[in-house]
Amino acid sequence: MTSRISRVVVTPVAFGDPPLLNVVGVHQPWALRAIVEVHTDSGLLGLGETYADEAHLDRLAAVAAAIPGVDPFDLASLRRVVVEVLGQETGGGGASFGGMLDVRSAVETVFSPFEVACLDLQGHETGRPVSEVLGGRVRDRVPFSGYLFYKWAGHPGAADDAWGEALTPDQVVAQARTMVDGWGFGSLKLKGGVFHPDQECEAIEALRDAFPDLPLRLDPNGAWTPTTSLEVAARLAGVIEYLEDPTPGIEGMAEVSAATDVPMATNMCVIAMEHLPPAIAQDAVQIVLSDHHLWGGLRRSQLLAGIAETWGLGLSMHSNSHLGVSLAAMTHLAAATPTLTYACDTHYPWKTQDLVKPGVLSFEGGSVAVPSTPGLGVELDRDMLATLHEQYLTCGVRRREDTVYMRSIQPDFTPNTSRW
Amino acid sequence: MTSRISRVVVTPVAFGDPPLLNVVGVHQPWALRAIVEVHTDSGLLGLGETYADEAHLDRLAAVAAAIPGVDPFDLASLRRVVVEVLGQETGGGGASFGGMLDVRSAVETVFSPFEVACLDLQGHETGRPVSEVLGGRVRDRVPFSGYLFYKWAGHPGAADDAWGEALTPDQVVAQARTMVDGWGFGSLKLKGGVFHPDQECEAIEALRDAFPDLPLRLDPNGAWTPTTSLEVAARLAGVIEYLEDPTPGIEGMAEVSAATDVPMATNMCVIAMEHLPPAIAQDAVQIVLSDHHLWGGLRRSQLLAGIAETWGLGLSMHSNSHLGVSLAAMTHLAAATPTLTYACDTHYPWKTQDLVKPGVLSFEGGSVAVPSTPGLGVELDRDMLATLHEQYLTCGVRRREDTVYMRSIQPDFTPNTSRW
Repeated sequence: MTSRISRVVVTPVAFGDPPLLNVVGVHQPWALRAIVEVHTDSGLLGLGETYADEAHLDRLAAVAAAIPGVDPFDLASLRRVVVEVLGQETGGGGASFGGMLDVRSAVETVFSPFEVACLDLQGHETGRPVSEVLGGRVRDRVPFSGYLFYKWAGHPGAADDAWGEALTPDQVVAQARTMVDGWGFGSLKLKGGVFHPDQECEAIEALRDAFPDLPLRLDPNGAWTPTTSLEVAARLAGVIEYLEDPTPGIEGMAEVSAATDVPMATNMCVIAMEHLPPAIAQDAVQIVLSDHHLWGGLRRSQLLAGIAETWGLGLSMHSNSHLGVSLAAMTHLAAATPTLTYACDTHYPWKTQDLVKPGVLSFEGGSVAVPSTPGLGVELDRDMLATLHEQYLTCGVRRREDTVYMRSIQPDFTPNTSRW
Repeated sequence: MTSRISRVVVTPVAFGDPPLLNVVGVHQPWALRAIVEVHTDSGLLGLGETYADEAHLDRLAAVAAAIPGVDPFDLASLRRVVVEVLGQETGGGGASFGGMLDVRSAVETVFSPFEVACLDLQGHETGRPVSEVLGGRVRDRVPFSGYLFYKWAGHPGAADDAWGEALTPDQVVAQARTMVDGWGFGSLKLKGGVFHPDQECEAIEALRDAFPDLPLRLDPNGAWTPTTSLEVAARLAGVIEYLEDPTPGIEGMAEVSAATDVPMATNMCVIAMEHLPPAIAQDAVQIVLSDHHLWGGLRRSQLLAGIAETWGLGLSMHSNSHLGVSLAAMTHLAAATPTLTYACDTHYPWKTQDLVKPGVLSFEGGSVAVPSTPGLGVELDRDMLATLHEQYLTCGVRRREDTVYMRSIQPDFTPNTSRW
């Protein structure tokens, strides 16, 4: 009656990624992800998606070899195996984040895709969508925000991409227009930390003029000092719904928070459970961005949501470059999280290919309908999986290195935070 | 393939309870509980157990009438129905606690037994024990502590019960001996707040002499001032593993905590999510006692556990007079809670009858083996359910009133806390 994990396949994939700029450099021509397939002896298949830098892939492979025999409902045993397999080798994992984040332990990032796959399996076994497995859907559609980036017209040496250049406020507005017209997004986020804060404020103000009713966010990934952060906060008060990581660290964010009413959000200084007590004690942030890939899966993301609710913190959702399996998991999680009231981030419009069969995850009015079929509700397109895996094999990229890539183009580039 | 709730039956029951003394009075001759049966259209039955004061029964009945049609996996909808049914009538519920606790909202206490029954159903539908439904068993046996009470030899006007009188240190030790010999408990808790603190310290010291290796706890239910609490803490430092609610309120507990290294535990000043932020900010307690009946079910108890883990708080488990359905739920929850490292409280040895079929929940070495059959693993004994319901109908008790009952015997009794 019950089932056991019988076989696990981890497939690294690569898909073309535009030259999106950020505080540590620029996105490489290929974004990497890993697709985790967890099969059971009852013939079911559960899916997960995660980072794919080589150190992470090694860890995924070791766990994949160790979990056959585990009941997909028994997440405690799954976690125990991950901890045992990783042993003392739990540090790092930062390669997945282009140098922007440093996680103390790899347990959560390694555990996550297997946990998602097990929840997918639980859904298939019980005939219920993952949102129901997680405790029940509180919304039928999940709103996402349009994620705007400064970018070059194309990768150096390659043709311009369809998005074209976005370096000026007008170009950012044009990009936003494409996002809003094509996807219907009802809120917009600009990845900043690229230019002088004045220039980024001008872009936000241009967006405000062009889209008077849309909530706006600015995320410079800790590029500013607390003083600069407060100047920006004063300038954009009433214009942005929140400012994300204007300055690095809990102490810096607390200094900014104490002196402005503009809500402070983070995906940099609070990225693990251990960061919550000091951040809350210092009132460093008012909004935490969850990310099931980073926080150890959907159930631990629910714990984060419960903590946020208990302490009256707002909850939003972070995104890295991702494919459809992740989008499905993000959508189910958001659907089952009552207090996730901010539109979620997603890089999904920037992806160039996908490996789930089309039709399930479509954006209408900036939101995605929660799949109502069992499990995550998405199915692998085996041909596309093979194509994206072949791209991984041939593309030459083996880890996310925004800074290395930027320096190959601008040798004097320095990715320091608190630059301004 | 999926199932829906088709029918719900709530049965109030009563079972004989010894005259156990506490800070607000004495246990009445009958303890009340309600058994919740949730049936599905697929022919499955899920069980829950909760308080049975009349106000609570009215709320349970209203919810029972409103939840047919809900998917037992869809706890979000279940919760929504509870909130809607209760409407503005969410206050009170304190009658369940003999006047010792005051919960702001009845949502959690009303939701709890239905949630447990739904998790039981999830277990039956998936063929897995509730501990697996909750994410997986981390221990095969759950240790409980022997719960010692000052007590009269019997209820006034009735024959002495089998336990006999326990008013002196020697009598408390004799009671403990019965508990340890009969049940194998590996730790002991004394309900205090009945006599002068010196007398209760003498009882603890007598227990220490009689059971040199057993962890000991003392719980006076807030009977003392902070000054007295610190005097007791100084006297019992190194003797007790924790002191539970020596003084009322978060501020009082914080005052005590700041001045002693004896760990402070609570089931009085932190009994809802809203109490966690102020208690943690003030470092008022080092150990929180969970109670799924009070905190809103097993999933919210897991949230409490996650919060406790995140902030480095210890976790123990509280008990009221209860029967086997509750014991099964407590056991599964504890089994699925990695950080629940203290032996759980239980009144189970004090019960005089039970309504689950015997054999599943047996104590060996003070611990209960986690049932390994689907769901909670317990089955109703219909004859005993009918007997205990008949007792409810005829016993005359309709709410827990320790103080009223005590005053019927000692008219000048005053249940004030901080008495000493």
